[in-house]
Amino acid sequence: MEQYEAYLNAQQDRLLSELFQLYAIPSISALSEHAQDVRRAALWVRDRLETAGLEHAQVLETGGHPVVYADWLHAPGRPTALFYGHMDTQPVDPIEQWNHPPFEPFVDGDRIYARGASDDKGSLMIAVAALEALLATRSSLPINVKVLFEGQEEIGSPQLGEFIANHVEMLACDVVINVDSGQFSETEPGVVVGLKGICALELEVRGPDHDVHSGSYGGAIQNPLHALARLVDSMHSPDGKVSVRGFYSDVAQLTEQDVTAIEAVPYDEQAYMEDLGVTELFGEPGYTTRQRAWARPTLEVNGMWGGFTGAGTKTVIPSAAWAKITCRLVPNQDPAQVLAAIKAHIVRHTPAGTQVTVRTTESGSPAYLVPVDDPYLQAAVEVLRDFYGQEPYLERSGGSVPVTTQFKKYLGVYAIGFGFGLPDERVHSPNEFFRKSSFRKGQSAICRLLDRLALPLGD
Amino acid sequence: MEQYEAYLNAQQDRLLSELFQLYAIPSISALSEHAQDVRRAALWVRDRLETAGLEHAQVLETGGHPVVYADWLHAPGRPTALFYGHMDTQPVDPIEQWNHPPFEPFVDGDRIYARGASDDKGSLMIAVAALEALLATRSSLPINVKVLFEGQEEIGSPQLGEFIANHVEMLACDVVINVDSGQFSETEPGVVVGLKGICALELEVRGPDHDVHSGSYGGAIQNPLHALARLVDSMHSPDGKVSVRGFYSDVAQLTEQDVTAIEAVPYDEQAYMEDLGVTELFGEPGYTTRQRAWARPTLEVNGMWGGFTGAGTKTVIPSAAWAKITCRLVPNQDPAQVLAAIKAHIVRHTPAGTQVTVRTTESGSPAYLVPVDDPYLQAAVEVLRDFYGQEPYLERSGGSVPVTTQFKKYLGVYAIGFGFGLPDERVHSPNEFFRKSSFRKGQSAICRLLDRLALPLGD
Repeated sequence: MEQYEAYLNAQQDRLLSELFQLYAIPSISALSEHAQDVRRAALWVRDRLETAGLEHAQVLETGGHPVVYADWLHAPGRPTALFYGHMDTQPVDPIEQWNHPPFEPFVDGDRIYARGASDDKGSLMIAVAALEALLATRSSLPINVKVLFEGQEEIGSPQLGEFIANHVEMLACDVVINVDSGQFSETEPGVVVGLKGICALELEVRGPDHDVHSGSYGGAIQNPLHALARLVDSMHSPDGKVSVRGFYSDVAQLTEQDVTAIEAVPYDEQAYMEDLGVTELFGEPGYTTRQRAWARPTLEVNGMWGGFTGAGTKTVIPSAAWAKITCRLVPNQDPAQVLAAIKAHIVRHTPAGTQVTVRTTESGSPAYLVPVDDPYLQAAVEVLRDFYGQEPYLERSGGSVPVTTQFKKYLGVYAIGFGFGLPDERVHSPNEFFRKSSFRKGQSAICRLLDRLALPLGD
Repeated sequence: MEQYEAYLNAQQDRLLSELFQLYAIPSISALSEHAQDVRRAALWVRDRLETAGLEHAQVLETGGHPVVYADWLHAPGRPTALFYGHMDTQPVDPIEQWNHPPFEPFVDGDRIYARGASDDKGSLMIAVAALEALLATRSSLPINVKVLFEGQEEIGSPQLGEFIANHVEMLACDVVINVDSGQFSETEPGVVVGLKGICALELEVRGPDHDVHSGSYGGAIQNPLHALARLVDSMHSPDGKVSVRGFYSDVAQLTEQDVTAIEAVPYDEQAYMEDLGVTELFGEPGYTTRQRAWARPTLEVNGMWGGFTGAGTKTVIPSAAWAKITCRLVPNQDPAQVLAAIKAHIVRHTPAGTQVTVRTTESGSPAYLVPVDDPYLQAAVEVLRDFYGQEPYLERSGGSVPVTTQFKKYLGVYAIGFGFGLPDERVHSPNEFFRKSSFRKGQSAICRLLDRLALPLGD
């Protein structure tokens, strides 16, 4: 047995208790009242990297939520891997659906419940633990390592692109190991090779300049809530296709090879529906559910509100109503073009008697696809194949990690997904959890990956 | 000058300071956390009626918010008038749009800003002041008077029908004087002879059994927000007609006489639009704006919500979305039939991949219309004509006072609108206000009305 395994076994309780400390910090990046908590998480992670044996551990400013950097660069002639992950979390609402407070980690068997448990604090701390184990047992790492953990992933990493662009030398590397990723199941490995792009906007529908009595004025003026419903509804056909003109214009159609790769990944539709608690799946006709989720662009309303939403009745026509929208993009789509198409659609479909204003909330990032023959991807595949005893699935995700695009753009490298979240862990939802077993398993896998990257790559 | 005029002039400052005391009680009937404030208002009003010289002043239970009763019955052979009004108010949100705290009355010239200032605490206290002035200066009233002030008008008076049915003897009278009403303008009188009926429901659209990541599951399942938008939009045609099958079935069409009476009431469309801050009016084709507002039924969404509504971005498909709806009804429409038609519409239009549940939140009341030749209406018209020097307009209202229907049903009498609110007073909206001048003027008008009702009525 490798020495790092004995070390990790012996230290596991401590490593878990440290994980719980990070879970307890409510580092919600979307809410300004939690900005100091994101910073607190950054300081905590910096200290933790230092005690793990990394060098130059530091919190760096971005203009928004900060990032943490550290490195260990004493393997001359060997590749340099940059670990990427994030310490910020999604908001917690609807808070009433949580069985336990989201920032008081609660253990139930193998599961640890907390906001951010799976996305992404669990995999982030796996990397820290693995680096510590190697340094503690060998006083060195097999390759050069840099670490960049950020605090604004859940709001689309608005300042990170500029940060990377301004720190190209500091961050220069041969590959990014992206721990904001997961495995296919507890026993089956997977590498995410494709992520969707994203862009986001918010729209406001205005009617009268103040809220008015719906008895006195109902039927006399346009109700902004009716207009918002009309506008939102106009964006999809009844069968689920996006009906915004130009939305699909540049979409890369799926090749036969794409379809084959996607279909190779096991998929149990019944289990999928049961997990969601739905009796029916729904979406763009002509594609399988997995094709829609992984390789077709989407337009989803994430929030919609206006008027009286408390208990009881208030007979009001509100002066305005709002919706938040995000689009997920596939290869060849340009976020700016998609945003422009939606804005043009809104202008064409603004209901009578209202003014609609649109605000871009995320200028967005395009989709991302790692070539199957990339040597670092192949090294990761090899490690996972040995570790799990099974060929990893080459998955795609409907999710977006905008920074992957920026690593390619500014550092010229791909980010290989090598995280240990699992698909049932209620990421972004109430009662998010992570597995203790994944935490331990991931530590060994990362150690093996670093050892593998010290050997010759490719054919 | 009548003695009561001198009395009212001398006492006006005190009467105003008492009005402010009532304004300061946050008697919001829709919010359970304010239930004790509604009761506090009731106790305050009971005490105030007692000091005004009324007898048997008491707070009575209804099973919900209480009512206040008082009487003075020492005019044998004279008619009995029952004063009706309400001491509860609408909620205050959006609170940030108020220029001053809604329950700290703020005076600016002739205007007093407060939630409930115009609807209906101002007119309620006008009646109290008038009764006090007559009793103080004559030791008697010209007719028999009963008072019923309630605390649940703004939530549709759910328990009041049963209360009236159970207190028919206590409330027996010849006419109801409804102070939950208003005048046409500062210089022109009006009597509201028609009110719309109302019914209300709330709908919930459910998708997955928990909130899910809109990247992972967007395009794979129906988004409850999209489904809610579709369902809400299906209830109106693009030109503003209600498109629920059966909604208009029983509607009493406007007669030529109705149209003439409505058109006789002055209407300045430009001023109307400016007051609302809209550049365009909108609604059911084929009717004037006033006809739509006064005499055509409407279906209005009062609130709609679901998903993430905070600042920033949360990439979520929520498990559910909600809407609150009220309908305003015109003569011959049955609230139960209208609710049934909407429920059937929802069943027919439930979008794929969702379950929709509907909850009736107000079983409702039908519309209400006082015959033009009613002798009590004619007496009120005569008093207003003399007082303002102009023929009162016979107005209708898009609003609903469900209790008027119940007075007719259980006591067999009409309720004559005789309040002093004015149409620009932002009822149900932020910065509601009432006029000091209306407060004073109304007191004289009520005294005159009581004197007039002591004389022979009709031809």
